[in-house]
Formats: sequence, C-alpha cells, structure tokens
Amino acid sequence: MPFHEPVDAALVPRFAGHATFMRLPALSDPTGLDVAILGIPWDGGTTNRPGARHGPREVRNQSSLMRRVHHVTGTAPYERLRVADLGDLAVQPIDLMAALAQIESGIAAVCAAGARPLSVGGDHLTTLPVLRAIHKAAPTRGPLGLVQFDAHSDTNDSYFGGNRYTHGTPFRRAIEEGILDPRRMVQIGIRGSVYAADEHQWAQDQGIRIIYIEEFARRGADQISAEIRMLMGDAPCYVTFDIDSIDPAMAPGTGTPEIGGLTTREAQALVRGLSGLNILGADVVEVSPPFDVGGITALTGATMLFELLCVLAETR
Amino acid sequence: MPFHEPVDAALVPRFAGHATFMRLPALSDPTGLDVAILGIPWDGGTTNRPGARHGPREVRNQSSLMRRVHHVTGTAPYERLRVADLGDLAVQPIDLMAALAQIESGIAAVCAAGARPLSVGGDHLTTLPVLRAIHKAAPTRGPLGLVQFDAHSDTNDSYFGGNRYTHGTPFRRAIEEGILDPRRMVQIGIRGSVYAADEHQWAQDQGIRIIYIEEFARRGADQISAEIRMLMGDAPCYVTFDIDSIDPAMAPGTGTPEIGGLTTREAQALVRGLSGLNILGADVVEVSPPFDVGGITALTGATMLFELLCVLAETR
Amino acid sequence: MPFHEPVDAALVPRFAGHATFMRLPALSDPTGLDVAILGIPWDGGTTNRPGARHGPREVRNQSSLMRRVHHVTGTAPYERLRVADLGDLAVQPIDLMAALAQIESGIAAVCAAGARPLSVGGDHLTTLPVLRAIHKAAPTRGPLGLVQFDAHSDTNDSYFGGNRYTHGTPFRRAIEEGILDPRRMVQIGIRGSVYAADEHQWAQDQGIRIIYIEEFARRGADQISAEIRMLMGDAPCYVTFDIDSIDPAMAPGTGTPEIGGLTTREAQALVRGLSGLNILGADVVEVSPPFDVGGITALTGATMLFELLCVLAETR
Amino acid sequence: MPFHEPVDAALVPRFAGHATFMRLPALSDPTGLDVAILGIPWDGGTTNRPGARHGPREVRNQSSLMRRVHHVTGTAPYERLRVADLGDLAVQPIDLMAALAQIESGIAAVCAAGARPLSVGGDHLTTLPVLRAIHKAAPTRGPLGLVQFDAHSDTNDSYFGGNRYTHGTPFRRAIEEGILDPRRMVQIGIRGSVYAADEHQWAQDQGIRIIYIEEFARRGADQISAEIRMLMGDAPCYVTFDIDSIDPAMAPGTGTPEIGGLTTREAQALVRGLSGLNILGADVVEVSPPFDVGGITALTGATMLFELLCVLAETR
Amino acid sequence: MPFHEPVDAALVPRFAGHATFMRLPALSDPTGLDVAILGIPWDGGTTNRPGARHGPREVRNQSSLMRRVHHVTGTAPYERLRVADLGDLAVQPIDLMAALAQIESGIAAVCAAGARPLSVGGDHLTTLPVLRAIHKAAPTRGPLGLVQFDAHSDTNDSYFGGNRYTHGTPFRRAIEEGILDPRRMVQIGIRGSVYAADEHQWAQDQGIRIIYIEEFARRGADQISAEIRMLMGDAPCYVTFDIDSIDPAMAPGTGTPEIGGLTTREAQALVRGLSGLNILGADVVEVSPPFDVGGITALTGATMLFELLCVLAETR
Amino acid sequence: MPFHEPVDAALVPRFAGHATFMRLPALSDPTGLDVAILGIPWDGGTTNRPGARHGPREVRNQSSLMRRVHHVTGTAPYERLRVADLGDLAVQPIDLMAALAQIESGIAAVCAAGARPLSVGGDHLTTLPVLRAIHKAAPTRGPLGLVQFDAHSDTNDSYFGGNRYTHGTPFRRAIEEGILDPRRMVQIGIRGSVYAADEHQWAQDQGIRIIYIEEFARRGADQISAEIRMLMGDAPCYVTFDIDSIDPAMAPGTGTPEIGGLTTREAQALVRGLSGLNILGADVVEVSPPFDVGGITALTGATMLFELLCVLAETR
Repeated sequence: MPFHEPVDAALVPRFAGHATFMRLPALSDPTGLDVAILGIPWDGGTTNRPGARHGPREVRNQSSLMRRVHHVTGTAPYERLRVADLGDLAVQPIDLMAALAQIESGIAAVCAAGARPLSVGGDHLTTLPVLRAIHKAAPTRGPLGLVQFDAHSDTNDSYFGGNRYTHGTPFRRAIEEGILDPRRMVQIGIRGSVYAADEHQWAQDQGIRIIYIEEFARRGADQISAEIRMLMGDAPCYVTFDIDSIDPAMAPGTGTPEIGGLTTREAQALVRGLSGLNILGADVVEVSPPFDVGGITALTGATMLFELLCVLAETR
Repeated sequence: MPFHEPVDAALVPRFAGHATFMRLPALSDPTGLDVAILGIPWDGGTTNRPGARHGPREVRNQSSLMRRVHHVTGTAPYERLRVADLGDLAVQPIDLMAALAQIESGIAAVCAAGARPLSVGGDHLTTLPVLRAIHKAAPTRGPLGLVQFDAHSDTNDSYFGGNRYTHGTPFRRAIEEGILDPRRMVQIGIRGSVYAADEHQWAQDQGIRIIYIEEFARRGADQISAEIRMLMGDAPCYVTFDIDSIDPAMAPGTGTPEIGGLTTREAQALVRGLSGLNILGADVVEVSPPFDVGGITALTGATMLFELLCVLAETR
Repeated sequence: MPFHEPVDAALVPRFAGHATFMRLPALSDPTGLDVAILGIPWDGGTTNRPGARHGPREVRNQSSLMRRVHHVTGTAPYERLRVADLGDLAVQPIDLMAALAQIESGIAAVCAAGARPLSVGGDHLTTLPVLRAIHKAAPTRGPLGLVQFDAHSDTNDSYFGGNRYTHGTPFRRAIEEGILDPRRMVQIGIRGSVYAADEHQWAQDQGIRIIYIEEFARRGADQISAEIRMLMGDAPCYVTFDIDSIDPAMAPGTGTPEIGGLTTREAQALVRGLSGLNILGADVVEVSPPFDVGGITALTGATMLFELLCVLAETR
Repeated sequence: MPFHEPVDAALVPRFAGHATFMRLPALSDPTGLDVAILGIPWDGGTTNRPGARHGPREVRNQSSLMRRVHHVTGTAPYERLRVADLGDLAVQPIDLMAALAQIESGIAAVCAAGARPLSVGGDHLTTLPVLRAIHKAAPTRGPLGLVQFDAHSDTNDSYFGGNRYTHGTPFRRAIEEGILDPRRMVQIGIRGSVYAADEHQWAQDQGIRIIYIEEFARRGADQISAEIRMLMGDAPCYVTFDIDSIDPAMAPGTGTPEIGGLTTREAQALVRGLSGLNILGADVVEVSPPFDVGGITALTGATMLFELLCVLAETR
Repeated sequence: MPFHEPVDAALVPRFAGHATFMRLPALSDPTGLDVAILGIPWDGGTTNRPGARHGPREVRNQSSLMRRVHHVTGTAPYERLRVADLGDLAVQPIDLMAALAQIESGIAAVCAAGARPLSVGGDHLTTLPVLRAIHKAAPTRGPLGLVQFDAHSDTNDSYFGGNRYTHGTPFRRAIEEGILDPRRMVQIGIRGSVYAADEHQWAQDQGIRIIYIEEFARRGADQISAEIRMLMGDAPCYVTFDIDSIDPAMAPGTGTPEIGGLTTREAQALVRGLSGLNILGADVVEVSPPFDVGGITALTGATMLFELLCVLAETR
Repeated sequence: MPFHEPVDAALVPRFAGHATFMRLPALSDPTGLDVAILGIPWDGGTTNRPGARHGPREVRNQSSLMRRVHHVTGTAPYERLRVADLGDLAVQPIDLMAALAQIESGIAAVCAAGARPLSVGGDHLTTLPVLRAIHKAAPTRGPLGLVQFDAHSDTNDSYFGGNRYTHGTPFRRAIEEGILDPRRMVQIGIRGSVYAADEHQWAQDQGIRIIYIEEFARRGADQISAEIRMLMGDAPCYVTFDIDSIDPAMAPGTGTPEIGGLTTREAQALVRGLSGLNILGADVVEVSPPFDVGGITALTGATMLFELLCVLAETR
C-alpha cells in the first residue's frame, strides 16, 4: 500500500478541493493503513451546550491549513505512516445506547485492519466505545494507560438522576469495565468550580493522577511531561485531547468552557512530550462549531490532531 | 388571583431585571392561571443541527421587548388572562423516552390546574408529549385539531433505521395515538426538497391539509386564514408554530432551515387570523440560539409568542 | 464653489481611502454647499439598546458602495448639488441637555451657510435639535411638515418617571415647541405591541396621520406616496428615516427592532415617492452598529441616505 | 454508468460524512456523467470585497441540507441524470490570465466527456472561461443565449484604467468574442446606483434585455418567466446565477451587495420558470463566505444550485 | 434564614430555568443575607463604546456554568454565606445625576440590611455611588482601601470640557469625597497609551500604588498579592474588578480594550491572593455584551464573580 | 511645518469624526513630514484566505483608541515627529505586477519628501515594493537589515508552479535583488508545520537568523531583543510586523493563522526592545478584517502601529 500524501498547497490552493482531514485521500476501507483518521459526529452524551456532532466537519475544514512536516521535531508523519481520512462513523443521534454500539463497531473495524484510530469527536463520551474497541481487539494486553487533556475529570458516576452514560462519566465506566488502569491515568489541565468538595475523591482513590492547571502553571511542561512519560512507561496507552483543556479564549467552541486553561503553546509542548510512548490511539473531542468564533477552535483542534499524528509517528 | 402585569418598560428599562417571558412574574405553581408560559429546553429529537434546548432562555431574553397591547387588534392579554412565567420543565438531555415522560408530566400539572400551556421549545418532538397531556386531561373531548406552521410536515414514520421518536415524526405518532384528528389538521408553509416523491402521501391520505408555501403565496393570508377557521370550526384545537416556517433570513437560528419561507408579516397575519378559535394550547418551537444571528430568531419567536398569547386571549 | 464628486470606484477601489460619506471630500466649512452630509454620533436619548453613537462611522464605511447616478430616476445628485462630508458634530456623551444644545448649534451653522443638512444619527432624539435649528433659521416660515419613516410614533410624553427628552418623545416636544405642524405630519411603518391601548391617541388627536404597516401592506407604496405628497403639498417639510422602519431582517442593527417591517424595496419606493416635495433637510437615524450583523444595517442606511440625497436633488 | 444517489439523510445524519455537493459521490473523471457539479474557487476578478474563492467549500457544506426530489415540480434529478461532484478546478490565485486558461481547460474536459457543467464560483469572471469552453466544444452551434440573474449588468468595458478582465466585464468580453448572442441575453434583478447615466447603454444597444428589479416587482415572476422563455426559444443557452441578485438580507455573503433585491421565493419561481429550455450549463457565483452570516448565503446558493439542477433535468 | 443553594446542574441542566446569578434564588429583599449579588444595568458614564448596561443579564446567563465549590481553595461559599440574586437596580438611562442617586439608594438598602453588596455593572462610574453607600452606612470607619483591577487608573478630573462624572473619573471623586484612602489604594493591570505624560501624576501624588502590567509581568502574582495584602492590612476595603484589566482576547466585550492585559489565569491567582482581607463589598464592571464574542467576556465576568464571592466567604 | 496632534478624545469622543490613523490629520502631500502613515489596501499576493485589502480601513477605525504618550517609555511621538495620515495608495486589485509598481511609486514619493513610511497592509508582498522604494531612495547605503515578526519565513521561491511574487516569497526576492542583507535579517515567531524538512534551509544558508517561537519562549523577550539589537547594530534597517506573528486568539483576522504564537504582551516587549535602532521604515501587514472577530485583530494592529511609531520616534 502506498504512503498517502496530502494535497500540496504549494500546487493546489488550500481553499480548493474537498475538505478531508489534512487534505489526505478519503478512503472507505482501513485495510493497510497504519493510522486511520476518522470523525465521530455525535454529541448525545452532552449535558450542557451541544454541537460537537458538527466537530469533524469543521476540523476537516481547518485542517486544510496543516502542512507535512513538524517544524520542531522534523517528524514527517506521511513518510512514516500510511494515513488516510476514513470518513465519519454513521452514528444516529437519537438512541444513546445504540450510538455507543455503532461507534464501538466502527472502531473495531479499524483495529481489525491493524490500524490505529485517530478520531475527532463528538463529545467525550465517544471515547468510551473507542476504548472498548481498542481493548477488545487485544484483551490480553490488559487495561490501558490514559493521558487525558481536559478541564474536567469526567469521572462522575451519573447525571440527572441516574444517567450513567454522559460525557461527564466515560472514564469511570472505562475503569469499572477494566479497560483503563487508573494507576496509569493522568489528567492535565483540570480546573473550574466543582459540584462538591470531594468530587475528585473517587478518581484519586483509584489512583488517577490529577494535575490541576495551577500545578501545571507552577511546574511547567518539561517537568509534567517527564512525569507523564514515567507514569506511562512502555505499556500501551491512549491519548485523549478534550479541547476544553485549552483556554476558552483559544478554544471557545466547546460545550463546557472554563477560563484559565492551557495556552495552545503549552498544550503543544505537552503533546510533543509524549514522543516515544506506546500509543494505541488518540482523539480530539468536544470541538463544538456552533459555539466557535472565527473557526479558531476547529483550527486549534486540527493543529492538535497534527501534533498527535506526529506523536503516533514517533511511537516506539 | 390577581392579573399579572409585565414590568413596565416606561418605568424600568427593558434591559434591567431578570429575563422572564414578557417580563411577567416567575411563578412555580400554575394554580389560578389561565395561561402558563413555560419553557421546554430539550432537543433530543433533533436529526440535524441541535441547540433548541437553549431556545427558552433566549426567547425570554428577547421577549423583554414586548409590550402590553396588540397594536392591530387592541387586545390587552394581561387584562383578560391570568398569565405568568412558570419557568422551564426540568427535562434531562440524555434519555429520550424518559424526557418525553418528563415533559408530559410537567404539562399535565398545568392542565390539572386548569391553565392552558403556552410553551417554548425545544425541538418539535416536544409537542408530542404536550399534546398527550392536553388530550389526557379531557380524553372525552376526542382528538384535537391542529394548526401547524412549519416548513416540514413532520409526519415521517422513522429515521436512522427505526427511530420512531424524532422531531420529524411527532404528528404521525399523535395521529396513531388518537390525539389528533387528521381531518382537522392544517400545515402551512411546507416547502423544501423532499426525500421521496410520495413523502407527504401518508399525511394527505389521512386527510391532513397541506398548504405549500407556493399556494400560500398565490392565495394570500386572508383566504388561507378563512380556510383554517372553517377547518377548525368550534372544536378544540392546538396551535404549533415551528419557527422554521419563517424564512431563514428572518429566523436563521433553527435546525433545518429552508429558504423561501413565510415573512414575519405574513406569519403575523396568519396567526391573527386564528382569532376566535377554540385553542387549548400553543407553542413556539425549534428556536436554536447557537445558529441565530443577532438574536433575530429569538425576537421573532418572542413576538410570535405574544401574537399567540393575544389569540389565546381572544379564544371563545 | 465646485461641484464635488465622489472618488471614482472604477479608478480607485472602494475599499481604498478614507471612509467619507459617499466618498465625497471631507470639508470643515459648509459655506457654499447646497447639502451638508454630517454625522451626529450621539445616543444619549436611548431607552433600550445603545450604540447609535457609532452609526455615522459605519454608515460612512458602507457608503463606499454607493455610486453617482440613481438607476431608476437617473438623478445625478452631484451634478445638481454641491455636497460634501462635513464630518461629525462633536457632541459629548455625558450631559444630555448640553448635547442637545451642541447639536442645535452645529446644525445652525449649516443652515446659516445656506446648506440643507442631511444627517446620520445617532438616536431619534437627535432629530429634535436638528428641527429646532432649521426652524430657527427661518421662523417666519411657520411650523414644518414631517415625513417620518418609523416603527414607533415617538410621541410619548416622558419615560422613567419624568424624563421628557428621550428618543421616544422628540416629536411631541417639536409639536409643543411649534416647530412641527401635526396636521402635516405622517408616520409610515408604525407597528409592534404598545404600552397602552390609547398610546397613539395624543398623536392622532393632534392630527398626525399614522400609517400602520398593515395599512401600508394593503394599499401599497403608490397610494401611500400619493397621500403623503398631498399632505405635504408645496410647504416646507423635513424627512426623517428611522432605520427601524425597515424589517429587522434587513436592518437588525438598531435599538428597538420590531418584526414585520418595511422591506428595503418598499422603503426605496416610498422615498422615491417624495420627489418634488419642498424638503429642508433629512436624516437617517438609529443605526446601531454593535447590534448589526455583517454591516447590512449600515449598508441599508447608506443606501437610504443616497435615496434621500437624490430626493433632495429633485426638490422644487 | 450508474445513477448516483446522494447519501440518504434518513440513514446517515446530514452533519456526517465528507461535504460534497448534494452529498453526491466525489469523482475525478467526468466520463459518463450527464451533469458535473464542480467548484471554481477563484476570485481574482473581484473589484471590491474578495472571498468568493471560498464559495465552493461552503456551498458544499450547506448543500448537505438538500434532499432528492423537488417539492413543487416533483422532479427527481438523480433519477434522470447521472450527476456527481467533480471536485474543484485547481486554479491558482496569483496570475489572472493563467487562471482563466486553467478554468477554460477544466471545463473543456467536462464538455469533452459529454457532460454539462454546473459550477459554483468564484466571482463572476469565472463564467467567461466557462462560456468559452462550452462554445468551443461545439462552435458551429453559434453564439449562446444567456439568462443572467444579477444585481449588476457586468458589461462594463474596463476597470482601474484598462483592466479588461474583471467580474464587472465578463459579458462584454463574451459578446465581443462571439460567444453570446446579445439579442438572446436577459438580465434580471439589475439595480443599485450606477457610475454614469448611460452605464447600461452599450448593453442595451447590443440588444440585451435588462429587467430592473422595479419592472420585476411590477410584473411578477409569471410574466417575466414567459418573456424569458420566449427570448430563449429552443436554442441553446446558459444560465448564470449571481447570488447578489438576491436581497442582501437573504444573501449577505457577497462582494457587492445591493439592497432591494429578489427574495429567495421570487428567485425560486424564476428559476423554475426556465423549465424546458435548452440549457447547456449553469452556475452559481459570487458566494463569499467571509462576508456571510450564519451560512445563509451558502444555503441560498446550495438551494439555487438544486433548483438549477432540477431545471437541467427538465431540459428538452 | 436558610443558606441558599444554586440549582444543582447534576439534576437540572444548566440551560434550563431562569437565568439568575449562580442559579441562586431571586429575592427582592436583602434582609438576612450576608452577600447580595445584584446588577447595576447602567452605562451613562461611558465615554467611548456603550453597552455595559446589558452586562448583568449576560453575566447571569453565563454564571449558569458556575458550580458550588472552589477547586483550588475548597471554599464552599454557599455553606458559609447567605447569598441570593437580588435582581437589578432599576436605574433609568437618561439622567446621569439621578442615576447615581438611584444606585446609591439601592446599595444603601443592601447595607442597611447588613448584607455586603457584590454587584455587576454597568460602567465603572457605578462604583462611585456603591462606595458612597457603603461609606455612609458606617462613616465612622473612615475612608476605605481599594483593590482595583483595571487597565485604566480612572482618576482623571473631567472629560469633554467639564464633565466630572464619567467612568474615567470615579476614584478621583471618591478620594475627594473622603470615601477612599488613596494610600490604601492599589491599581493592578494599568496599561495602554495615555493622554499626557503626567496623566497618572495626580494619582501617584495622592499615594495610590499603580502596578503597571509590565511590573506585574516581571514580579508575578505571588509577590504582587503579598504587597496588596500588606497595603490593605486588616482595615476595611473594597474590591473592584474592571473586566478590561483582562486581555481583550479573553474579554473583548468591553468599552475601552487595551491589548497586553492580564490573562484570566493571572487574574484568578490575584483575586485568590485577597483571601483573608476585610472586604466590605466588591464588583465586576464594564462587561459590554454588544461587543462580546461568543459570550467569553460574560463567562470571564461570571467566573471572576465567583472568585470574588469565595474571597468574600474567606473574609476575616 | 507644524507638529500634528491627534484629535483629543478627552474633548471629542473617540467614536466621532472621520477615521484616520491615530486621529491624525489626513494629508495628501508628504512634504515636511518625518513619518507618513499610509495604507496599502492590496492583497493580490495572498495564497490562502484574502481580505488584507480591507486592513487599512479597519486599523484606522481601531486606531481611534490610541492616545498620545507611551505608558512605559513616556515617548510622545507627536512631539518629536511630524506625522500625518497620508491616505491609502490607490492600488488596483487586478494586475499583480502593475500593483507592485504602483506601491513602489507611492512609497518613492514619501521617501523623496524625506519622510519615513509607516504603512499598513495589505498582504506581506506589499513589503517588497516598499523595500524597493526605500532602497532606491539611497542605493549607496547598501542592503538593509530586517527585523521581521512573523509566523512564516516568507522566503519560498515560488508557488503554484512558478508564481514568484506571492506573500510567501517577498524576502527571497528582496535578497536576490540586493535590497536586504540576509546576515542582518532576523525572523521572530516562526512556527507551524512546514511543506518540507528543508523549507528554511535556503534562508538559513543565506545567513538569516530564524528565531522559532519555541526558542523565544525559552529565552524571553529581553535576551532576544538584545540579540536583535546586536545583529542590527547602527546600520539602517526596516521593521516588518506580520500580524500572524501574534497568536490567532489575539489576532484571528489574518490569512494564514498558526496557533501557539506570540502574545501581545510579548510582542510589545519585543518592539519596545528595538528602541534606538536606525529604522528607515516599518509596516504592519496581513490584518484581514473579514476574518477578524470583534475588531480585535485591527485593535492589535493599531496598537502595534503605535508601538512602531514610538520606536521610530526613538530612532537615533
């Protein structure tokens, strides 16, 4: 199978042509791919402002601005990996439990083909069926590590009197299901007022390492990155990038913004710090175009997608 | 019980004070009210662009611009009716079937108190549980008539492979459930490309009178209004105003816009033409603030809400 | 004195150069002008949403799109009239009564130079000092006629417990001061809910002809224009164009929008119908850029300004 | 070759999947197609506000809202015509004359394959090379007729001191080149102030029928459509739809807006009136997303594209 | 009196229900409250871009995103303080001096009830009558200290030829009136070009400590906070947070933006540093929704309001 | 010749009057000026999103917020320099090579009058003809140094198959033409993915000092400024400020945004660090208002223009 190349913007203008992720070819079959970029346009787990269902399309649009080579690391992902735009999973927006099954099934096909999924949400509940599919593809590997960029821990138990599947609960479910190893989970950028003083107690009791934005600001990206790498070690892990980890001035288009977040520069440094980890898949979630201004959130999402792709290319 | 008056904008500026519908008092108990204005912030039935869950809040905001007396008919609704803002129904956004039950239960309480509901959606599926509650409150009355302002017939059978409860199906369900009498149903403003040539066949076979925008444009508001009044007669009916009946230049903030719609002037004339009908309740639905521009859709929604309130005040 | 020409957009692009009204020269002295276009950036009389103070600048911006000759009437105003952009009156935003005096004094200078003022507001209270100045310039002429395009009558007595000078009261004041002759006043486009059933009684008792939007819609521009011309006759009059007479889909950027208004096409036909009247001055008011979307209101304002200029050129 | 069907939105949500025109398959070869929809993302001929280069992408986005069957005529274009999204012509934005050659060459390939082009601009200068290619494909047919929806005549001679190729000059060039027959050219919706009293003289001298908006408003769509059909007769013609023919409240996203334009309802009626003409190709031009608000212009453009496609399907 | 709790967003969605500050109960009587949150929707002192009159409503809207417990300090303000939303002061927008009296009188009622005011402006001139009321409530306390977050010193003498009451002059007036003790005043975030080289001389001569943004950037929040705490000591002080202290990328919706401001993270750290001070009241001012983008300024304002509330709860 | 003063905003409100750069007088002749501020409304070299042609007008608009004295350095530029707004160069948008000649000729006139040009673009290709004119005015001075704030190196060879004049190539051309001395060129803020691993090789081979954003973040403004001053020495140089050097959260209105950029605070510190250099001219380019949100980019551009003006005033 060939290595796919993005359309060259020095030949074809960026605004020309169909909007695919990174201007890569649009394929419908993951066979032969190393990494399948795909969209999961679904926001049925959203407790507040919806719209992440429109995320994949706008991230595709803005990803036309990406080029081929990382300017800091020199990584040229399309020379190392076979990557394509696999389209969107066709998830219906009405029935939540059916939607989770549809997502899991779509990702399972990617895993079965031997490709790693790099998905664009959708709300953060989409990560749960993605993790299920990855885990089921090789259950003997045991539970996965998780690097989670986020303003919120997303480890609540339920919402609205018993709804256990929302975008505020995916990682509690994944731990309960044995998919994630909480002692190899790290959450970076957590902040904002909380419902209760002990809101994060359950997570911390499981062993999740919560790095509040204040600790990050004090210690800096280098130290934090080193700690993350140590926590993850050589074992397989997954990287989930909730766009609300970024400050809402830089990523306003999201459902639950919290001021005082990561700058894009800090987020880039942190993702670059994941180089060399054993990453089985990654995602960018919670980009909600109806609340975006000037496409900046989708641009940030597209750029973080490129950063993640480069890290996938640098995986051991 | 007193007649409630809006805050007087000639004394307190319109931008001051809590945003309630029409600047009316916010009550939590419908007892003694003739009309209860309330919000149903839920959009779980939406097949395309979400956001109608945010409708009630923005319609409240823009309704601060409304005054007390209708400038054409002279109707002073607050002198004839006891009206208040009953708040929003607390409907959770995650579980669709549970949400329908929550809405029905909330409206049932209004009906039980002897008040007529004037609700602000939410997507058009919210009208189904509202109709259920009104119908159950006096089932011996038989099925209701319906005056539906809409770009779409909303009488499809199902979406996405079997989802029977979406904002494209409520009136088919209501007919099947014996709540609506299709021979006393009229749909005004229907337009836009369709899935299939026979898409409206089922509706027409039931006896629903579909008035496409082209017929409206040809015949005008006076003739159409006369026909509607004749169809409804003296029997009880419900009025549902989907904001997408209005042209998207005047109401862009909605999930499924179709160009070539009613102007606001035409819509106002049509609603005024309902004067004297036996209306048990009414709603304005599908105002989706995340897609609005400059609040114009919410303003249009608020004004149509006032027009509907005046017609409720003129009910026989 | 020369006839001033706008910069030619077939030579210099429309987006180039300082933004002046109609791309005319910016002068500081009205001497020798037939018509002085000027801005009155003040909104201290606004009872609801402010921002009309920013109106002149944005109307200037959008007026770059205007050309030299009216496409229907063939009127070439710059060949008939000496016109220039006289800049803005330097009115302070803090002290209301002082502001009215500043405006009157600025317009008095224009009148003293023999020029007719064509001003851009600013809220509708700015029209009061303009009328005062015009009237004082030749008091023996007697009270003036008024053609008022507006959603509101603006003849209330006071607001907020005794404030007699607001943008809802100017024409009552002008009648009381003997500046306007109410029997030669016509208001077109009036609509929207009212505070009280008799809100317009005072105005109608004085003899003001109120043409509600519903009457306009029924009779059309030709009939209404004929009636206006008959009412005005040969005697001097003033034309005031409140942008909220236009439907808010076409002019959202205003402080008190009312749906169901004039279309721009209708408004253009009505203004063209004023040809031949004895017009001493005119204005466009209530363009509020902070509430505008995409500059459409300012563009509408600029185009109506050109229409008014052509009518001034056609004055007997 | 198969008939291509759009993705069914009752199965796959409208917001899912790659944005192609009408959700049709994206092909790179026109062979076997009856109609090739394609984008021409180029605005190098723009004299005022640029951005039409971004038109194809946003029209694609909004065209996801289109369905399969015309609700008035019942036309099902995908059952009559083989249609696909042929992508965008890769036109560079720097060298104007080279760009015209690139466009002509791209369209020539479509014509050579026996398909009719239905293109989305791009500014109105893109229509010139399209017409050249169509004409050269069968020069013995002689000059074509033209139905032009537009606010401007676009028959100026040159701009900025001698630039003969701009979006204000294409139809003058096409007449000079013998591509268009001016006596079978009709322009509908013309309006706005003009540079000179005789600006349209050349066009009228050639025999072009200019229908100003005022004449249209007076006579209505039925009469105007009949006249257009008579003018075109059975001979081949081309239809060009400049989005600025529509009122800027309904299509703000364009480079040279003029208030007082066609409503979308009127435009739809006019395009439907072209049914049965011998149309060799069509386009929608001057959609400029950077100036759009809420995507309404792109939605209008996408809907007019569907209307044009249906008319192509109804061609004799 | 009970401790009031915000509506729980884990039970009732954030977008549901009336928008009150922090989703607290709306009360009309301050009796029994420890802190009264209230709006002052007035911007009559604004010298440049207006709109802060709309601030309270939008800050209420965005405050729905706040939760109950501070994630860093663990402070649970609603368990320590009786807090409610007292509504807006009904200040008329026309007469400046009357407005100042209305504000003072409204705050006096809060003070008389023994509650501390936490107000949302409104422009910065609203702080003057608030300070007057607080000072008059216990004049024997002597002049107050002031912690002022701001881009501007707001200690000018007058504007526009003698207007002494504008949003650029409140603190000069308050010093002159003996309400503030300039030697216990600190201004943080000052920046931007100035009218004159000695513009801040008067303030510095009085003893006001001006901390320019450059000094802040050099020394950091910890050092600056320590200095502020030392300056304030145990004596009573007031905290005023002008949203323009924040960088306009994070708070664009304000009347006089200055680039290069505080980040929200820095501002949060600074406000948290006020813990333990003897604070009699606080405000957030100059949020101007008409100039906001995507609600980010109102969100920032709402979050700073929560930060201030927590500091009020931590007051000795 | 007099020293020109901006209109005083303490006397005339900022929103009043014609929008000129810094509210300076608009002159048409540079004679006697020390610095001529002028606009170059042209974006014909843009490879991606256009709109910089509208930059000068919006930067003028926002520059009304500037005052007279720098708050850090105390520099009062209008007391040291004769400065005025010289208007815009009348560059046509159609013919690229002719446009470059028009720009060069316009700047040559400024140089001939002995004034230094401070221009506002326009895309970055406008800097090439500006440099040509400055160089030709005194060719014996030899090639100039360049301080370039930018996200991109702009030293590519060609685009789209041979177009050598685009906004991605100006500095390669200027080096080839002997106008710039690459060993005295420094580029600050470079970042973003690149076309090829060796994309910057040519530039570095020439001796250009490229300071990537990561190096800047590590070393800080003080060190970088010192290095720049050392590189420039006493020899003449030019300063070009591409607004995309700033982070797109703070300057979204530009054609090729790259996240992770300079903050405005950092950019201000860097420009202030140029004090004392021998600067022959400067510009702010790539402000593209159609992509701006809330005017923040134009405000940033206007403020950087003021910073540059102060540095010009501090030139040895």
